[in-house]
Amino acid sequence: MTHTSPGYSVTLRVGLTPGQRTASDLAAAVADAGASVTALDVTESTPDGLVVDVTCDTTDENHAERIRESLVSAGGYDVRKVSDRTFLMHIGGKLSVEPKVELRTRDDLSRAYTPGVARVCLAIANNPEDARRLTIKRNTVAVVTDGTAVLGLGDIGPAAALPVMEGKAALFKQFGGVDAWPVCLDTTDTEEIISIVKALAPVYGGVNLEDIAAPRCFEIERRLREELDIPVFHDDQHGTAIVVLAALINALRVVDKKIEDVRIVISGVGAAGHAIIKLLGAQGASDIVGCSRSGAIHRDGDYKDEHRVWIAEHTNPRGVTGSLSDALVDADVFIGVSGPNILGEKDIARMADNSIVFALANPDPEVPAAEAAKHAAVVATGRSDFPNQINNVLAFPGLFRGLLDASAHKISTPLLVAAARAIADSVGPGELNASYIVPSVFDADVAPAVADAVRRTVEEERR
Amino acid sequence: MTHTSPGYSVTLRVGLTPGQRTASDLAAAVADAGASVTALDVTESTPDGLVVDVTCDTTDENHAERIRESLVSAGGYDVRKVSDRTFLMHIGGKLSVEPKVELRTRDDLSRAYTPGVARVCLAIANNPEDARRLTIKRNTVAVVTDGTAVLGLGDIGPAAALPVMEGKAALFKQFGGVDAWPVCLDTTDTEEIISIVKALAPVYGGVNLEDIAAPRCFEIERRLREELDIPVFHDDQHGTAIVVLAALINALRVVDKKIEDVRIVISGVGAAGHAIIKLLGAQGASDIVGCSRSGAIHRDGDYKDEHRVWIAEHTNPRGVTGSLSDALVDADVFIGVSGPNILGEKDIARMADNSIVFALANPDPEVPAAEAAKHAAVVATGRSDFPNQINNVLAFPGLFRGLLDASAHKISTPLLVAAARAIADSVGPGELNASYIVPSVFDADVAPAVADAVRRTVEEERR
Repeated sequence: MTHTSPGYSVTLRVGLTPGQRTASDLAAAVADAGASVTALDVTESTPDGLVVDVTCDTTDENHAERIRESLVSAGGYDVRKVSDRTFLMHIGGKLSVEPKVELRTRDDLSRAYTPGVARVCLAIANNPEDARRLTIKRNTVAVVTDGTAVLGLGDIGPAAALPVMEGKAALFKQFGGVDAWPVCLDTTDTEEIISIVKALAPVYGGVNLEDIAAPRCFEIERRLREELDIPVFHDDQHGTAIVVLAALINALRVVDKKIEDVRIVISGVGAAGHAIIKLLGAQGASDIVGCSRSGAIHRDGDYKDEHRVWIAEHTNPRGVTGSLSDALVDADVFIGVSGPNILGEKDIARMADNSIVFALANPDPEVPAAEAAKHAAVVATGRSDFPNQINNVLAFPGLFRGLLDASAHKISTPLLVAAARAIADSVGPGELNASYIVPSVFDADVAPAVADAVRRTVEEERR
Repeated sequence: MTHTSPGYSVTLRVGLTPGQRTASDLAAAVADAGASVTALDVTESTPDGLVVDVTCDTTDENHAERIRESLVSAGGYDVRKVSDRTFLMHIGGKLSVEPKVELRTRDDLSRAYTPGVARVCLAIANNPEDARRLTIKRNTVAVVTDGTAVLGLGDIGPAAALPVMEGKAALFKQFGGVDAWPVCLDTTDTEEIISIVKALAPVYGGVNLEDIAAPRCFEIERRLREELDIPVFHDDQHGTAIVVLAALINALRVVDKKIEDVRIVISGVGAAGHAIIKLLGAQGASDIVGCSRSGAIHRDGDYKDEHRVWIAEHTNPRGVTGSLSDALVDADVFIGVSGPNILGEKDIARMADNSIVFALANPDPEVPAAEAAKHAAVVATGRSDFPNQINNVLAFPGLFRGLLDASAHKISTPLLVAAARAIADSVGPGELNASYIVPSVFDADVAPAVADAVRRTVEEERR
């Protein structure tokens, strides 16, 4: 069964033939066509009849057209216009650049611009660190992509990736008070991306890499971290890893197991899987088995890719071989950052008692959440319509808020762990249960808690 | 004599010894030290005495310290704090990035971000021109610099240039409603700058090049215009040229001469001078002599630089040779975009009757404005403390407003001329006189008039 979603919300403007159709008829007809009606607004009421705006969530991009057709064939409805509310929200873009200073008078201009600004320029030329005090570098992060691994859409290019980066920037401001700016690069050359981000760095206090395909993303992040003096963070890797660790800390509390003791299986060894393996290791996990499409990665395997070689050398202490299903037998924790529907109910049944399943493939998880829930004690997904949504927005706004406030120059693993713990601890002992292992994305206390933990970690590391 | 400027405005917090010093004494003492007192605020009044904030414009960056010393040596004043109001205005930077959409509920998130945003991305992937409708590209301009020719400061680097670019972006928004974003590049390599701006282009509807040293700026602009499908504008060249042409159109109206008939001498053949020569030619000027430090550029000269070769071949029909002073004899118009104090009163006296002098070097013009005014009918400078300020802010906000509204792909010379005429015509016939040849930078009607002229020109050229 397909679900309706507010991501596919449309508004139909419909004229009703007087004496033949009522607004209630219309609402019923739209519901019969499979949509969820969310609002009914009469926009015109005259002796010649009613005009009604009916707003509804639909299931997919063609659903609105099917609704229109069913109204037309039912008769008595005059469908005048179909507006897609998602597209309406994006018209003209989702960000604006606003001056923080007024330029109403000559004196304002003399201070904000010439001649006064020259002194501010010279102060920075003489002491470059002053840029973090006297310019937007203080609070500004670049959201950098090449558009090659956007959402589930893949390589759609930099222009088509821009709506996502704008949305990301909006989340940065809303949840972290961070000024973020989209940098969508029309190149997929690793060296060129590195040199461009380095050249852009004077304006920014941090870099958030986003939706860049693996393995290019590893090299870009590694090099930028070496060569820049501002923190560089690949959200698809570390943002996901932070929230997964936070969720796992709390899930283990629910089932009363220790991270040192549990057997963990991870499906997917791309950008996210790789970062999750490292971060769980930093938190004390010792029995992790990473699985690619060809099964468990183990010490005796023959891997070309340096990242798989690293995984083979640093995980799987019991030398597990075989398929993902094989690896899952008696495992305590499954973490999927791979593809849809690769596991069935039986695979989950063969896990250890009180198992934990994070099936994060989006929109369709590795195993249907309802099936997993029959056998696992705790289930989480990437979806918003199931409990325990693993969503990066819990991490990145607070993380960069803390980095900027501390004028951080780099990002360390202890800092990522501190962020994860802060998210986990945002769920109070009285609130924690199998259906509530991570806070809501709208919980306004999370980002400040993460920021605080990050800032303290930076300050401790500086000592 | 040095002038005080609001660009050097400071606030001193001073405790007064009771029975010995009054607030009036303080104001007088600060004025005696050469400052212009603009405000006097009592912040504390107790039996133990007064604490007063005295705000004043000073003459230079060391003046505040001299004022402090003179108060201390006079006695009875306790100077507790000196705040520089210009620096205070710049703390934290002058721009913020604001979401135009609310993200308060799950439905908001579903439309602005995942899953709804995916449909918007796909629409752009299928039809790239949709980026101008569904993203910030619709209204966003990159303000690009390498920090090599900033104000009168020269090569101070990209970080130190940022306060100027932020100010420029603030002006773009204030006067043109344009979202502008600073791109301060940590490279001075021409090819690298070109390839970076090309790679950044998906996010932007236009590029404003700023404070890039000549001759690099010419090549960068030329290549970007060839290789990008969005308008590229080097403000130091064309912005200056537009406002100079606007001012000249009106100055010639004041003295009742025709541009086709007048003899024009231009001092300075860098970025600005070169663009002025071309634009005046496009408006019908036929007798222009360009002068460098080594004098008039003429057909028989030996020039290495391709831009001087072009000037030699396209100007100076009378074959004038010799120094700038020589070239000025009997000239109708002098336009200086060079350096301070290279001409004296006598040079202006030797120009034709009803001469026009635009001495635009900043902060000190080619000839003191007061001296020029003794002999010239119309005098303009780049300074705000003399009539007729030639200020690029009259051009660039309206220009880009029009370009964005017309979804322009390029910038033509007729478009620059149209912008200049719109600025000139913003001064009504009843307002026009020798002291008012350009509108005030705060005249809110100018940018819409320029935008309208630009948009109409783009639409005509498209037919």
